[in-house]
Amino acid sequence: MKSFLTLKSVDEVLSLVETGAPLPAERVPLDECAGRRLAADFLSPEDLPGFARSTVDGYAVRARDVFGAQEGSPALLECVGDCPMGRAPDFSLGEGQTARILTGGMLPEGADCVVMVEYSRPAGERLVELIRSQAPGDHVLERDEDASAGSVLIAEGTYLRSQEIGLLAALGQSEVLVSRRPRVSIISTGDEVVPFTQKPAPGQVRDVNSHSLAALCRSAGAEVRLEGLVRDDMAALEAAVRDALSRADVVLLSGGSSAGMRDHTVDIFRAMPEGRLLVHGVAISPGKPFILARSGAVWLMGLPGHVSSALVCARVFLLPLLRRLQGGRENIAPGVTAVLSRAVASAQGRRDYIRVRLSRNGNGWEAEPVTAPSGLISGLVAADALVVCPENSEGLYAGQEVFALLLE
Amino acid sequence: MKSFLTLKSVDEVLSLVETGAPLPAERVPLDECAGRRLAADFLSPEDLPGFARSTVDGYAVRARDVFGAQEGSPALLECVGDCPMGRAPDFSLGEGQTARILTGGMLPEGADCVVMVEYSRPAGERLVELIRSQAPGDHVLERDEDASAGSVLIAEGTYLRSQEIGLLAALGQSEVLVSRRPRVSIISTGDEVVPFTQKPAPGQVRDVNSHSLAALCRSAGAEVRLEGLVRDDMAALEAAVRDALSRADVVLLSGGSSAGMRDHTVDIFRAMPEGRLLVHGVAISPGKPFILARSGAVWLMGLPGHVSSALVCARVFLLPLLRRLQGGRENIAPGVTAVLSRAVASAQGRRDYIRVRLSRNGNGWEAEPVTAPSGLISGLVAADALVVCPENSEGLYAGQEVFALLLE
Repeated sequence: MKSFLTLKSVDEVLSLVETGAPLPAERVPLDECAGRRLAADFLSPEDLPGFARSTVDGYAVRARDVFGAQEGSPALLECVGDCPMGRAPDFSLGEGQTARILTGGMLPEGADCVVMVEYSRPAGERLVELIRSQAPGDHVLERDEDASAGSVLIAEGTYLRSQEIGLLAALGQSEVLVSRRPRVSIISTGDEVVPFTQKPAPGQVRDVNSHSLAALCRSAGAEVRLEGLVRDDMAALEAAVRDALSRADVVLLSGGSSAGMRDHTVDIFRAMPEGRLLVHGVAISPGKPFILARSGAVWLMGLPGHVSSALVCARVFLLPLLRRLQGGRENIAPGVTAVLSRAVASAQGRRDYIRVRLSRNGNGWEAEPVTAPSGLISGLVAADALVVCPENSEGLYAGQEVFALLLE
Repeated sequence: MKSFLTLKSVDEVLSLVETGAPLPAERVPLDECAGRRLAADFLSPEDLPGFARSTVDGYAVRARDVFGAQEGSPALLECVGDCPMGRAPDFSLGEGQTARILTGGMLPEGADCVVMVEYSRPAGERLVELIRSQAPGDHVLERDEDASAGSVLIAEGTYLRSQEIGLLAALGQSEVLVSRRPRVSIISTGDEVVPFTQKPAPGQVRDVNSHSLAALCRSAGAEVRLEGLVRDDMAALEAAVRDALSRADVVLLSGGSSAGMRDHTVDIFRAMPEGRLLVHGVAISPGKPFILARSGAVWLMGLPGHVSSALVCARVFLLPLLRRLQGGRENIAPGVTAVLSRAVASAQGRRDYIRVRLSRNGNGWEAEPVTAPSGLISGLVAADALVVCPENSEGLYAGQEVFALLLE
C-alpha cells in the first residue's frame, strides 16, 4: 500500500493533464467540422457582409431627408425604384430620393439608413411619405459589421458549434484547420472477463468497460480502437500496451481492480519506452487507484476495474485530457443548481463525486443521491448528474444547494 | 400583418411539437448506439452479475465464523484455497473454513461475505487470522444486484450515454432497438444567397443557414440532406418542398425574411398534401416569424432568414421536435446559474432569448449580454449561453440571478 502514501489531489492530476500538447492539425471539410476544435486562430479573410445591407423591408434613405419626420409631418420623397436582391443597385440616391429595399438587400449609394415599411404611406406615383425619423446606420448592417478583414474571429482551440460553422461558411471556408482527433486504444483485462458477445459461464462477466469507455471517448471527439481482452498476465499485458503505443495518443488499461493488478499496471507503464509514472493513486472517490503515466508523447491511463469508478474517473481525468489534446481550454461544465435531498458523508482530504438523480422541485431541482456499489453499472444508469463534495468538507447536508454536473 | 394577430406563445408551440410521434425503430450495433434513443423498454434478459461476486481482495467466509472478530480476539480459520478468477470454485466452505478471493471473483458455496485482506494475518500453513466482524452480504454483489431478470432496466426514449451502453454490453446486447434518426431536408432561399463555395458579387452573401442548421441537426442525432438553394420564386420553392417530402421527416425552409417571402412560405406549406398550418408567428424574440406546419406525417418549418434568429428558433423548437421524433421526453437543459452584468429590456407578453457571454466571477458566473443585430452570425459566436426573459416580465435587471442555457 506504500504508493498510496503519495496520493495526489484531483487538481494536481488535472494540472498534469493540462500539460498535454495539442495534436497536429488537419484540414477537414466544413460540414464535418462540428464538434471539432480549431487548430489555429481564424482570421477573417475579408469584410463581412462586404456591403451595407438592410435588416428590414422598407425604404433606403439618407437620414437627413427624414429628419424630424413623424405621423403629423411626413417626409415626402421621390421613390426611384427597387433595390434588387443579390445585385448592386444600378442607381444612387440624390437628395430627397428613396428606393424600396427588402431585408438583406444592398443599400444604393447615397443611402445611409432604412425606414421600415410600416412607417411609409404611398403618396401618388413615384412618391412616398415616410413618417419616422432615423439616424444614419439605422436598420443597416455595415460592410464589416459581422467581421472585418484580418481580425481574429475564432480563437485557436475553440469548439466548433453550429454558429462557428455558420461563420466559417459565411467566409467561404470549404475546409477548416482543426486538431486531429485523439486516437484512444482501450485494453480490457481480467481473467473473469469475456467478450460481450459471449455467454459467460458461472464466475465470468461480459466486458463492460471497453464499450462504455469507447462511447465516452467518441462523444469527446476521439477515435477509438478496442484492443480487446488481455489476460491478467504481466507479459501479455506489457506486450499489448507496447503494441498499442504505435497507433495511439492515449492507451487506456481498464480492469484488474485487485491490488496485484494495480502493481502490474504501474510496472508495465514504467517499463514502456521513455516511461514516466505521473500519478499512482488520487484522493478521489470513486477512483482512488487511478494511474497516469507517459511513454514519450503517449498518455497511459490505468482506470479502476469497477465500471462506475472507471467511468467517473474517465469523466474527471480523461475527458479533460482529450479536450486538451484537441487544443481546448477549460470548458463551462454543464449542469444545474439543485437541492440535495439527504445528507451524504465524505472524508476530509478527498474529493467525492456523488451520483445523483434529478427531479423537478417547484421551479428548481432536487438531487437524490444514488446508493449503489461502484461495481454496479445500474447505479450510474440511474444517475443524471454528479455532485462534488470538496476536499475540505466531511460531507454535504440535506437541503444544501449544490451544483449537479450533468452526465451527458 | 393580419396573421401576427394570432401569435402563439412559446409553450403553445412546444405543446404542438410534443404531439410528434416517435419514428420507427431499427436495430443498430451496440458500439454505434451512443447518442441514440431506445425505441422500447429494455428488460433484463437475465440476472446480473449472475453470481455472488466479491468487491474486494480478501477472504470469503461465512459471517457467523467471524462474528465478534477483532484485533485482540481474531477468528482463526482454515484456508482451503484460492477462488479462481473466471470460474466457479470447485469447493465449498464448511464451518470454520475460508478461501482467498480477488475483486470480481465468484464466492464459493457456503460463503456469504468477504473480509478485506487488510484485516487478515497469516497464522501458519492453511491457517489465517481474521480480525473483523462482518454481516452477510458485506463486500459482495448479489447475483441479481445489478439487474434482475425481467425488470425494466432502461425506459423507452432514454438517451443512451456511456453507462447505458455499458449496461447493454453487460447483458450481451450486440444490437439495440433504437428510434430511426430523423431525416431533415434543408432548403435555403434568398435571391441574394450563393453557395458558400462561391465568391459573392456585391449584393450577394454566402449560404450560412444551411450549414449551421445542418450542424445543429446532426448534433441532435438527425441525418441531414442539403437540398440546396432555391430562388425566391413561389413555384420553384413549392416544387422543392414537395420534392423533399418524400425523403424527409422534417423539411426546413430557411431564408426569405422579407414579409412577402413569409407569406409565400405559409401558402406553400398549406398547398402540400394534407397540408395543415399550425403556427404562423410566435411571441418570441428573436424568431417571431417562425412558421410550423404538417404535411401528413412530415413536419414543415419556416425559419427566420436572419441567421441568429434562425439558430435560436431552431434550438427552441427544432431540437425538441428532433428529440420527440426519437421518442425522447423532456431533457434536463444544461446550463449554469449566473449573475447578469447589466439590465436588458424586453416586452411583456413575449419570451426573449438573450445571448450572453459567461465569465468567471469568484465562485460563480457572470453573464454579459451580447449586443449584436440578429442578422450577424458573430453575435452568436460570441455567446456561450441564452438567458430567458419570460413573458410576464419587462426585462431583467443588473445583478439578477439567471439561468444561462449553454449553447453547446
